[in-house]
This record gives sequence, C-alpha cells and structure tokens, in this order.
Amino acid sequence: MHAFAVDGLPEIDAGDDLAALVAERADLTDGDVVCVASTVVSKAEGRTAALAEFTPGPRAEEIAARLADVTGEQKDPRFAQAVIEEATEVIMDAPFLLTETTCGHVGVNAGIDRSNTGGAELLLLPKRPAESAARIQAGLAADVGVVVTDTSGRPFRHGQRGVALGWAGLPAARDWRGETDRDGHELAVTVEAVVDELAATANLVSGEGDDGTPVVVVREFEFGDHDGSEQLFRAVDGDFVRQALRDWTFDGA
Amino acid sequence: MHAFAVDGLPEIDAGDDLAALVAERADLTDGDVVCVASTVVSKAEGRTAALAEFTPGPRAEEIAARLADVTGEQKDPRFAQAVIEEATEVIMDAPFLLTETTCGHVGVNAGIDRSNTGGAELLLLPKRPAESAARIQAGLAADVGVVVTDTSGRPFRHGQRGVALGWAGLPAARDWRGETDRDGHELAVTVEAVVDELAATANLVSGEGDDGTPVVVVREFEFGDHDGSEQLFRAVDGDFVRQALRDWTFDGA
Repeated sequence: MHAFAVDGLPEIDAGDDLAALVAERADLTDGDVVCVASTVVSKAEGRTAALAEFTPGPRAEEIAARLADVTGEQKDPRFAQAVIEEATEVIMDAPFLLTETTCGHVGVNAGIDRSNTGGAELLLLPKRPAESAARIQAGLAADVGVVVTDTSGRPFRHGQRGVALGWAGLPAARDWRGETDRDGHELAVTVEAVVDELAATANLVSGEGDDGTPVVVVREFEFGDHDGSEQLFRAVDGDFVRQALRDWTFDGA
Repeated sequence: MHAFAVDGLPEIDAGDDLAALVAERADLTDGDVVCVASTVVSKAEGRTAALAEFTPGPRAEEIAARLADVTGEQKDPRFAQAVIEEATEVIMDAPFLLTETTCGHVGVNAGIDRSNTGGAELLLLPKRPAESAARIQAGLAADVGVVVTDTSGRPFRHGQRGVALGWAGLPAARDWRGETDRDGHELAVTVEAVVDELAATANLVSGEGDDGTPVVVVREFEFGDHDGSEQLFRAVDGDFVRQALRDWTFDGA
C-alpha cells in the first residue's frame, strides 16, 4: 500500500471543482482511494462564515458565560450560536462543547474551524460529506473511492487523528463476522472501520501547517474478500458514552 | 509512504525472538516503523493463560451475574476475574467491561483475547508494551521505530481501528503548538497522535483472519520538523469521559 500527497493544489475558493483540480495533478488509477480534507471541501462548497452572521440566543449566551467561567477565557456567544446551529445535538457544554454534527460525527465545536479557513472567520463542516464524496468521485475518470476526512480528538487518548466524515465508492468497514482465526475460533474483531484508518493514513502524509497538502491518494489498499458495512456512526441507543455524557455535569475547572 | 506486511512469519511461541524473526524476513531500512500486533508480542512473552488459573472473587461473581442479566448470555466469572486482575481500573461493568490496562490504554475486557490465541484459552496483553517495543527495536540492526499495536472499539463510532499500546524509537505525537496556518493563524490541531495513525495504517494492510500478517512495516513516514510528545494516554484528571462513565449506570438491555 502506498500513500502520497497531491502536490501543487492552489488555495481553494468557493465554486472550485475539486475533482478537476485533483485529476490535473495526480495520475489516478482504478482502485485508488482519494482522501480529501474536509477543509478544502468546505471551501469549495462556500461553507465559510463570519461571526456577525450569528445572533446569540439565550442558550448561546448561557453556554458562553459558563465556558468563560470554567476556562477563565472570554468566549464569544456568537461562536456558541454558530456551534448550536451547526450541531444536531450539544452532548456536553462544559468544559468544552461536545456536539454531534449533521453527518453523525461527534466532535468538539461542531467541527467549526478557526484556522486554515482561507481568510474567513469561520469554516463550517461540509453539510453532507457523503454527498460531497460522491460528487468528487463522479468527477474523477478513474474508478476510485473517495473519503472526506477531518481530524478529531477522542476520549481516553491525547491528540487528534484522522477520521472519515463521508465516503463514496467503498464501504465504511470490513465486516469480519462469522470469519475464523487460524485455530477456527470466531474472531473477536467483528467490524473494522477502514475509512477511518484510511483517513488516519492520509493524515500521516498530509500536514496541518502552512505546508499542508489536503489531498492524499492511498494506492493498492486491498479491501479483501470480506463483507462491507456502511455503518460508521453509532445510533444514540447503542452509544453508552453519549448517554453517560448527557447525564454528566462538569463540576469545576 | 509505503506499508507492507512481513510475509512468512511462523506461528509465534513463548520465547521466540520476534526481532530476529522479522529481520530474517524483511529488509529493513533506517527510518522504517515496524508495527507489531500485540497478539504476537504476547505470545512471544508467554502471556497465555487458562480460565482455570483465575478463581473468581465476589466482585467477579457479581460482574458475571450482572453481565448475564443484561446481555442474556451466560458469562464465565473466571473470565471476569481475569479482567479484574489485568485491569488497572474497571471503569464500567455493564453492558460490557470497560477497563484501563496497565499501559494506560482504555478498552474492553482489559484487552484479553479469546481468538488468535494460538490454542490457549486466553491471550493477555503484553504487560509493558513500551518495554516490549524497546526490546524489539534493540534487536533490529536498522535504526527503526517500533509500535506495538492493538485493535480497539471507540465511543461514538462503530467498528474497531488500530491503536498503539507501546512504542520506541519515535515520539507518540507530533506537537504543532505554536505553529501557524497559511494565513498566520495558530493551528487548532495541537497534537497529532502519529503512533495511533501508524497502527491504523498497519491494520489496513494486516488482517485479523486466518491469513493474518501481524507485522507491517511503514516506510518513508516523515515525522517532519515538529516537536515530539510522549503523551498518549490521558490522565484521569483531564479525562472527562472516564469521569462521566464512572458515575453512570447502565439501566437496561
């Protein structure tokens, strides 16, 4: 398996055809997986915003006040309002805003970026990343998979890692159910989230800084002879951590 | 960046010299990262066990009864006892056993495997995976990094993905603090857990089934001109999800 960045992409603006820009710079082959950072998908889709576009309601004022209280830093209630509007659910409001976004991804601040925004105050996540992935895939001549990626923190472990927000042209996961190990025992691992692992691979090659390369091609990834699964985001019913966090209140800085 | 499996490894037994077995089969180069599945590290370190070795105490009996009640399946209290003995903390005991293991990793059942065990009833995690990684690294002639990997589920998202348990010869994370984006804004991503992303890459190439290849080499990974960080596992104080889960009780199947 190989992974390489697509070099020489320009700064992306609203209306840019990402598929065309990638195809001009990478000699894609059938079976490649093209991993595209959500930042450039958002920019191409015009998902930039100014804080002035968000008028804080009472909940945003309350959240901003509580965050300021807890963190000791002034928080802009317009930013809290933007997060509320972009989120499907605010799971936790202190010591940070943990949210579910429209695609099902759970992350901080509804994934709204304040760096790498291309000059805008705010960069919102793509509204429907799976549709974004399908559109990019349709614009590429080769028969490739496309994964729209983000970086995100996680419970229990420090640091961020690449994750998938949307994908097209490949399943989200390898489904090992019913398969056996060398001794004939059923496997403990039942589903492997390959799109997240592809996003992690892309993030190793890419970069966040001013030398960032937002598109990475993974070549010769073999899905193998397994069933595919399209489920990546847990439903609330089976998401015990979300349930626990809903019930929990942060009790001090 | 390239990733390839080391082919032809035999079934690993207690006392086997993993470094020698890998060196005989892979032409390693300075800068390679050798990702080794914890299963084979455990086997080489003799970390197999039989259920009969674990005599359930009252807590194990209680946990097994509650799990059986909640899941409708009979649970072996000896297995619960093994989990208790292997765990630093049992964070949640229903609807599954969420634990912290000695290295700091939070996962289900203290990482005890019942498949790919090489014939044993139980395969325990390496006791000190960082020391295992350092020992393998010391046994290899090339100047490589070593990551001892596992697969693990996670909150919010279905499926398992590769994660790092221990590492040597490279930092756990890239530290971007103080670095700026193209517009000169400080980056939102501050720490990138590269050892987890390397483990995810290895897991894409590897396999869990009877064609499993437990050692994967990642070549031409560039850490880049960033500070390194050795922190991967959150301390309890800053781990809000763990705090919430400690306080939470599962209230029905």
